[in-house]
Amino acid sequence: MNGAEALLRTLVASGVDTCFMNPGTSEMHFVAALDHVPEMRGVLGLFEGVATGAADGYARMAGRPAAVLLHLGPGLGNGLANLHNARKGFVPIVNIVGDHATYHKQYDAQLESDIETVARNVSSWVRTSSSTEQLAADAAEAVAVAVGPPGQVATLILPADVSWSDGGAVASPVAPAGRAAVDSGAADAVAKLLRSGEAVGLFLGGAALGARGVEAAQRIAAATGAKVLAETFPTRIERGGGLPEIERLAYLAEFAAMQLQGLQHLVVVDSKAPVSFFAYPGKESYLVPDGCEVHELAGRADDAEAALEALADALDAPARVPADGSMPGRPTGPLTAMTMATAVGALLPEGAIVSDEAQTSGLFNPGTTAGGPRHSWLCLTGGAIGQGLPVATGAAVACPDRRVLALQADGSALYTIQSLWTQAREGLDVTTVIYNNRSYSVLNMELGRVGADGGGPKAQAMLDLHRPDIDFVKIAEGLGVPATRAETSEEFTEQLERALAEPGPSLIDAIVPPIL
Amino acid sequence: MNGAEALLRTLVASGVDTCFMNPGTSEMHFVAALDHVPEMRGVLGLFEGVATGAADGYARMAGRPAAVLLHLGPGLGNGLANLHNARKGFVPIVNIVGDHATYHKQYDAQLESDIETVARNVSSWVRTSSSTEQLAADAAEAVAVAVGPPGQVATLILPADVSWSDGGAVASPVAPAGRAAVDSGAADAVAKLLRSGEAVGLFLGGAALGARGVEAAQRIAAATGAKVLAETFPTRIERGGGLPEIERLAYLAEFAAMQLQGLQHLVVVDSKAPVSFFAYPGKESYLVPDGCEVHELAGRADDAEAALEALADALDAPARVPADGSMPGRPTGPLTAMTMATAVGALLPEGAIVSDEAQTSGLFNPGTTAGGPRHSWLCLTGGAIGQGLPVATGAAVACPDRRVLALQADGSALYTIQSLWTQAREGLDVTTVIYNNRSYSVLNMELGRVGADGGGPKAQAMLDLHRPDIDFVKIAEGLGVPATRAETSEEFTEQLERALAEPGPSLIDAIVPPIL
Repeated sequence: MNGAEALLRTLVASGVDTCFMNPGTSEMHFVAALDHVPEMRGVLGLFEGVATGAADGYARMAGRPAAVLLHLGPGLGNGLANLHNARKGFVPIVNIVGDHATYHKQYDAQLESDIETVARNVSSWVRTSSSTEQLAADAAEAVAVAVGPPGQVATLILPADVSWSDGGAVASPVAPAGRAAVDSGAADAVAKLLRSGEAVGLFLGGAALGARGVEAAQRIAAATGAKVLAETFPTRIERGGGLPEIERLAYLAEFAAMQLQGLQHLVVVDSKAPVSFFAYPGKESYLVPDGCEVHELAGRADDAEAALEALADALDAPARVPADGSMPGRPTGPLTAMTMATAVGALLPEGAIVSDEAQTSGLFNPGTTAGGPRHSWLCLTGGAIGQGLPVATGAAVACPDRRVLALQADGSALYTIQSLWTQAREGLDVTTVIYNNRSYSVLNMELGRVGADGGGPKAQAMLDLHRPDIDFVKIAEGLGVPATRAETSEEFTEQLERALAEPGPSLIDAIVPPIL
Repeated sequence: MNGAEALLRTLVASGVDTCFMNPGTSEMHFVAALDHVPEMRGVLGLFEGVATGAADGYARMAGRPAAVLLHLGPGLGNGLANLHNARKGFVPIVNIVGDHATYHKQYDAQLESDIETVARNVSSWVRTSSSTEQLAADAAEAVAVAVGPPGQVATLILPADVSWSDGGAVASPVAPAGRAAVDSGAADAVAKLLRSGEAVGLFLGGAALGARGVEAAQRIAAATGAKVLAETFPTRIERGGGLPEIERLAYLAEFAAMQLQGLQHLVVVDSKAPVSFFAYPGKESYLVPDGCEVHELAGRADDAEAALEALADALDAPARVPADGSMPGRPTGPLTAMTMATAVGALLPEGAIVSDEAQTSGLFNPGTTAGGPRHSWLCLTGGAIGQGLPVATGAAVACPDRRVLALQADGSALYTIQSLWTQAREGLDVTTVIYNNRSYSVLNMELGRVGADGGGPKAQAMLDLHRPDIDFVKIAEGLGVPATRAETSEEFTEQLERALAEPGPSLIDAIVPPIL
């Protein structure tokens, strides 16, 4: 058996049976091995950022990693932004980067570059597999590292000759560590704080935002008056269907400061003390108020949900009363970010997966959907735009029985628009909504916030997206996805209803004014 | 004056007056400074790979570098593939990467990552500017490093507070080194070889492929019988208008071996001993025949054209007789890669710039255009696909009086298709021809060449680009570029003629069968 086949069989044995890829010549034996390993599904992306982002979305929903196959250093570069997002979201990915044959590297051929240095930007674990005999064991270790906890990007560099040579043998899976139980001392200390009468906030992130975690947090709040906040951009948060709504920390530091004001203690639960997204002249980067102490209930590798449940029980918190749900009615009139949010809230299907990269236009979406049916909400975890469409694609591969709704800003959509083709090819039930305000609206806001005197026409030209206007209907159709344009609330609502009812992908190009 | 303005003014003073950019919040002061420095032109790309590739194409044609402005580590990642191509082609780029404010980095905010490690993949010179006072001097040094010789990617990392703080002052330009005269001993040794009667090949690359270089090489060949070859993928080669046609080394090692067979000496001139693009099982990576000695006439930093001219003179080579030009007639019948090449040859305008990423479909283009009017031919220098459309964009910015023809494979086009929007916004005279064979055709060939048994349906599905077919007409129109589809030779010829006659960008989606 050659190395490639041993690698694929080992991945499958380790629970990795989906590979998002954009291969080249040095990966051809991996590709050929797909036909020998029927359990492994290969999904082609037309650009590496699609593949890496799809692996991220897949893992968030499947609860186990997918593999990615990239072509040398430039392919890794193209996939890097969404690997960065996965790293920041603690999402497991087995990142396989093909390389030249070991003996070919000395010649500095055209595609030669230093892959390991680039990989270290996103991976704490980087290994160049040096022999066919060792390859499968390296792969098994890569899966275990990726799974964590916490999830991470494990990069396995695969020289072409290691892949094509004979002598491969399937390796046994390496058992991942599993999440650790939280030390009872830490839990007792937090319980004491919560009983103290002082103002305590719980700040939930990562794996704390599953259904069990948010329910337990709400019980704690009910029993103690603690304030519960979630990270600004959760990897995945379970919402709706009677689950309590967890207020998310605002993106804008000015609003976040108001949310945190008055707290004497902030307890981080699979999160960290909040900091502002960017630095701004004369403003604080560290958002915890002066005098507020930070405590940790559960670290990144801990079982945060169990810790929250144990804490609720220790506090004799009452059982949770499911929240009353209510969905908004269908909007009418001119199309705005608010009426779009209303339509999304009115129509959100049971079990939906929302991939949220709506940026400024998406401000109202959490509010209109909190009372809807149970759904999962996936955010832009690392700030590198161009994640939403790939994540939606991967989530749909992981969950073929759930509807995926991608809420996507226009500027951000154009980084990985090739995702639509993969959705069409794979027949994925993804409905993409483009908030087309024809600008990098967030940058118009940030230009002022950083204190730049940027009212000039040359600066403005770097932030607007018209001249020419972008027609997402045509782009989508060009990539094989049916699309419509909405310019009123009625059109949008009707189109969204139809799109969510039909099988396969679709796109709505919604023309809205900027909200800022 | 803040750092950003001092930086822009220093760039302009150093001869860099164009910046291709895809900025974010941390670069807003740089953007705002555009309105204070009227000499600096900002060109927006919707994706970083567009910006970096455009800077490459600009420098190839302008003969001086442009700047690029990218947003933190993920932005650099998105731009990395085309920076790799620039590095491999010895093209100068001043690569400016915005970073968080220096005091913000400790907080590991969402977009925090290790930018320097990624930059080292493409840059020998990487500097994080640590103070506003020092920034301008760093920029002046970056320009000098980029100019070389040889040209290179110089990466200046720009923390937001260094950019926004006051205390900046314009720095004087740093004089670049200039190309070195070739040591007379090396030239004498090569002259002796050429007079020896042994079989000598001249292998030209880099700056040796300008009009003076190829004319001198042809004189040497005429005087001595030496064989003249060019690199497989030149950065820029001047052709047509009576210039001698230089045979390029074949991409396929099997053919390259035939071209090099029998040579006893190979003289590299701003190039290096040829190696195969990829490794193949059981085949040699090093393509120089056994027993053939390699000599160097001019290194990467030398004045290769002057060296070739001096050599021709030393050999008393006769003055060059301009080659007779002849352009093919207009093709008819079914559209194929050959008839497309014929149409390109028939219609190539005087002074055209050809950005060639046609891949397998472009095999016939050099042959049909050699006898045409004077033009510049730009190749994919580093093997990272997705270069052709950005390079065409940047070349058109550099040379507004010349027509640019982008010959582009379908698969490769989709990596940086966003280039079309920049062409539309800037009103660039770029005609893009998509060779739409609906597959990664080169990979279908490579699958067999690497000896992979890849006839299976799963492997084939990773290489084909239909299901669904991609409609480049719609995609182009969606990005603001008028487009047509050609399915016969007559249609293609007529559309190409019209596109080349009209101002502004256009695209032809040419449906052709794979040639392999």
